[in-house]
Amino acid sequence: MKHFLNTQDWSRSELDALLAQAAAFKRSKAGDQLKGKSIALVFFNPSLRTRTSFELGAFQLGGHAVVLQPGKDAWPIEFKLGSVMDGETEEHIAEVARVLSRYVDLIAVRAFPKFQDWSFDREDQVLRGFAKYSTVPVINLETITHPCQELAHILALQEKFGTSDLRGKKYVLTWTYHPKALNTAVANSALTIATRMGMDVTLLCPTPDYILDERYMGWAEQNVAESGGSLQVSHDIASAYAGADVVYAKSWGALPYFGNWEQEKPIRDQYKHFIVDEAKMALTNSGVFSHCLPLRRNIKATDAVMDSPACIAIEEAENRLHVQKAIMAALANQ
Amino acid sequence: MKHFLNTQDWSRSELDALLAQAAAFKRSKAGDQLKGKSIALVFFNPSLRTRTSFELGAFQLGGHAVVLQPGKDAWPIEFKLGSVMDGETEEHIAEVARVLSRYVDLIAVRAFPKFQDWSFDREDQVLRGFAKYSTVPVINLETITHPCQELAHILALQEKFGTSDLRGKKYVLTWTYHPKALNTAVANSALTIATRMGMDVTLLCPTPDYILDERYMGWAEQNVAESGGSLQVSHDIASAYAGADVVYAKSWGALPYFGNWEQEKPIRDQYKHFIVDEAKMALTNSGVFSHCLPLRRNIKATDAVMDSPACIAIEEAENRLHVQKAIMAALANQ
Amino acid sequence: MKHFLNTQDWSRSELDALLAQAAAFKRSKAGDQLKGKSIALVFFNPSLRTRTSFELGAFQLGGHAVVLQPGKDAWPIEFKLGSVMDGETEEHIAEVARVLSRYVDLIAVRAFPKFQDWSFDREDQVLRGFAKYSTVPVINLETITHPCQELAHILALQEKFGTSDLRGKKYVLTWTYHPKALNTAVANSALTIATRMGMDVTLLCPTPDYILDERYMGWAEQNVAESGGSLQVSHDIASAYAGADVVYAKSWGALPYFGNWEQEKPIRDQYKHFIVDEAKMALTNSGVFSHCLPLRRNIKATDAVMDSPACIAIEEAENRLHVQKAIMAALANQ
Repeated sequence: MKHFLNTQDWSRSELDALLAQAAAFKRSKAGDQLKGKSIALVFFNPSLRTRTSFELGAFQLGGHAVVLQPGKDAWPIEFKLGSVMDGETEEHIAEVARVLSRYVDLIAVRAFPKFQDWSFDREDQVLRGFAKYSTVPVINLETITHPCQELAHILALQEKFGTSDLRGKKYVLTWTYHPKALNTAVANSALTIATRMGMDVTLLCPTPDYILDERYMGWAEQNVAESGGSLQVSHDIASAYAGADVVYAKSWGALPYFGNWEQEKPIRDQYKHFIVDEAKMALTNSGVFSHCLPLRRNIKATDAVMDSPACIAIEEAENRLHVQKAIMAALANQ
Repeated sequence: MKHFLNTQDWSRSELDALLAQAAAFKRSKAGDQLKGKSIALVFFNPSLRTRTSFELGAFQLGGHAVVLQPGKDAWPIEFKLGSVMDGETEEHIAEVARVLSRYVDLIAVRAFPKFQDWSFDREDQVLRGFAKYSTVPVINLETITHPCQELAHILALQEKFGTSDLRGKKYVLTWTYHPKALNTAVANSALTIATRMGMDVTLLCPTPDYILDERYMGWAEQNVAESGGSLQVSHDIASAYAGADVVYAKSWGALPYFGNWEQEKPIRDQYKHFIVDEAKMALTNSGVFSHCLPLRRNIKATDAVMDSPACIAIEEAENRLHVQKAIMAALANQ
Repeated sequence: MKHFLNTQDWSRSELDALLAQAAAFKRSKAGDQLKGKSIALVFFNPSLRTRTSFELGAFQLGGHAVVLQPGKDAWPIEFKLGSVMDGETEEHIAEVARVLSRYVDLIAVRAFPKFQDWSFDREDQVLRGFAKYSTVPVINLETITHPCQELAHILALQEKFGTSDLRGKKYVLTWTYHPKALNTAVANSALTIATRMGMDVTLLCPTPDYILDERYMGWAEQNVAESGGSLQVSHDIASAYAGADVVYAKSWGALPYFGNWEQEKPIRDQYKHFIVDEAKMALTNSGVFSHCLPLRRNIKATDAVMDSPACIAIEEAENRLHVQKAIMAALANQ
């Protein structure tokens, strides 16, 4: 039984099939692939796009999504094996996952890092806990990676460039400013999928402290080796943007300061000029711009960039619906 | 593309068609007008009737409603144009409305005033923001007016009086007591629709400070000019109730004290006797009583009035379902 | 019109019919018994299994469930008759129940005790309020009893023993430790249904203070008289477990200390050894173990017991879906 925890667990041809199915759903939204079936959407963190698109995706395919928020309208959950549960948690993931598996055909989970200890967060224990105990397929709704976003992003690029073959494109993943230290999930994911698709990828970030976790840097290198393309790290804005076909922006916290965010704050505050603006976009090869949303305007990117024809963030967001329908259809009928 | 932001934006014949369709749905609830379609219900404030009736209305017409609560289970939203978003908001209405428009066929929004500054609240920026950026029709679920409630109210009156022509009826919109200063939305709406239907309308309130905003007083005057009927303001309970065919109660805060509610409190506390009771109802022309709900019993109206045959508040609440189905069906198939 | 407030209000043959229908739904999940119909799920307390199983049950039978959380995303509700509502509550159960009855075909309510005053809580006023004013059938989602859980539990036992006749089985309802004083609802329910089914029931608890309310002890005695079986109270772990066919565990607060929980705390803390472990289970007649969930592992029961083949808690949880579909189908089509 296949889960959808990371694109890296899926073969390239499987990913291509998902993208093709997503494009088909975009042309014709109705289907019966989930007729009478159901998915539990388990949110440990807020959501707008993810929840709406999954809920509607299930509906459009004849199924039903149940939205659960443990610790808010459901019980807080324990993830440690062998715990003596004398604290705040009221039930164990073993029971939660097993019971949900009896009710639904798919379980999808959003669980952001706790931002205290990266060595803990990088184990992705909430998602892994569900995958371990569930007897139905599990989908990652963003934990320390965001594979649904990856496919939506790639579909938007394929549409923009009019081809499913993205090799040879210069792809810049740029760190951008945000007043708080955010999750690296989308950055990890962008690095992973852009190299997977064989693009020439530049990771642009203020300092070496902002380089991503070695697991994802390793996946990227492995992908470059397998699918062609290239990977480089840059701290120079001008040369990174120069000639870019794609600029993908995301803000994230520097891993060496994980849990000591008050120390990282004055450092990150020096890099507000990483904002994506028209001057930087003018350096590109008439490149497209995107972002996973939510986005703080005039902090991460200017109004002018967001409202320009180069911005495909809305298209990417729409594609969440289509790729997720493809993922659900594939997982529920394997 | 037509929104449903205020009844005043719709022609009388369009409103009559909605009411006729609502009456038809009341006789036979099932339909396929929203088959495969969806609506986002965006709640910035709590709801019982609105949420239930919209969610079921969509279901009964073959569609699906997604319930979103920005700031609770979705991200807090920025509404100012050109903002440098370095505060608490995580995304801009431009993106929220555009993305939702890609997912759903209709967007409905509840956003009460913030009660700090009426000159700000009267701009209705949340609803206007959705209407500006959305590419699908937007429905007002109560902001500074409550047009869905208006139609439900009128349908209940038409049923009670056995005619769609309400001209010549004496309609009293009475302020009633509530310990807190509440939204003027339903009062604005009642004044608007009662004059629109050509009734003889009396706005009964404790003092001139409780007269409604000039925009809605102006709509009422304009309606009187166009559809007949009349409008007067009264501060005298006995003469206002005398001979009334309809008593519609609502509590609201006095606009001159907007944002200084601690100053308004001792004033409003002098008018607890505005409660709707049997003695006042005995002055009417065997009049009917209604209220939009929720209603604090024995504060706004007595148990005896609420439980009397004259009370049509439950009927009006039921009609929310039927009129909203008519609104959704009309907007989704324009 | 029949509600589902307590199994004790239903005849044995009616309960047997519900169990048979539930078993049928377990073999084949789809149906049209709720086609075009709806249920309001009103939660005053959190839920995982109840919400998911009711929501999916409605969907699988062609209906739709609306989830409401009064005081969170709906208005706080008043239950006292004749109240002058000048406090926190914004509307009365009379209006809530009457209005919901116009929208939906069934109303289901979860309302735990407030744990301040048992003489108040034992009146079950929230559930009774809905049943009084609703014009559609009302279902108990756990208040001071949990009748849906009862049927799920019995169905799991019938499956495990391969017979619908549970007479002659030794059934031990054991108090188990939890750091907080919990609701007696599931204990009341277990005692009620186990005696109803004619089993030989032992209520095992630390001291006489943990004996259940006289209403439920009385129901149990009445059931023993009618359906055979027996009822005894024990404070001795070894003799209670000896030869048991079923061990059902639950933690609850001692009624004499109701509202004075800080006094009960040092007493309950003396009984941590009531935990269900392998040593105790070894005393049984190869007995099965169950619990309603959520369960704190290694506090209420050990990992070894929970993960053993004797544990049927997951099966019981699954059965919630099937029995509730049977209950909804019966109530909506009476």
